[in-house]
Amino acid sequence: MSNTNVLPLLEPEASEVVAPCCPPLTERPLTAEEAEKTARMFKALGDPVRLRLFSLVASHEGGEACVCDISDVGVSQPTVSHHLKKLREAGLLTSERRGTWVYYKVEPSVVAAMGQMLGSLG
Amino acid sequence: MSNTNVLPLLEPEASEVVAPCCPPLTERPLTAEEAEKTARMFKALGDPVRLRLFSLVASHEGGEACVCDISDVGVSQPTVSHHLKKLREAGLLTSERRGTWVYYKVEPSVVAAMGQMLGSLG
Repeated sequence: MSNTNVLPLLEPEASEVVAPCCPPLTERPLTAEEAEKTARMFKALGDPVRLRLFSLVASHEGGEACVCDISDVGVSQPTVSHHLKKLREAGLLTSERRGTWVYYKVEPSVVAAMGQMLGSLG
Repeated sequence: MSNTNVLPLLEPEASEVVAPCCPPLTERPLTAEEAEKTARMFKALGDPVRLRLFSLVASHEGGEACVCDISDVGVSQPTVSHHLKKLREAGLLTSERRGTWVYYKVEPSVVAAMGQMLGSLG
């Protein structure tokens, strides 16, 4: 009998798949369905704490961070976890559990698609 | 006496100035102040109807549109006007009154700055 797995083995967290969406905004109006899908991503970044956490993950060494790496954003660790989960649900972050901690990483394809939608207007 | 100005001359609508903000998100975490400012813009696009209206303006002939150009988004004209005003207040659209109608146009520098913040992650 080995003791290496005394930590509970958790299910990999289910993440709704959010495919990159939609043409450059100058090309044509979004359909209702496209707008619904994409607005979720913008909304996820529409909260100052969440946006700050997103930038913390994006700029962290190696492009990933866990709650253990995050301090001084002025909210409690459970709140940080909650916001990171919201960002994951919106498809902007992916997560991977390693031992005690869940590590979050930017999902580059989704975020780049958002950038391209807007970038076409510059 | 001329009759050309029988329409009431309205004050130009006050628009809060929103300067393009913030470094690429991979560079460093946003400060609380930067996040506050930028989250407002993302939040403005975080509503499906508003995002759709934004794409309608962005893709409209000449890059501008008035409420009179917008139909079939499934909301009333006053609601359309309300959402366009929110987008203007967030700095994403500018507006100009011509006669009866207010014309909205994308503010390219602000939107490009948002695109660049995200684009750096792609």
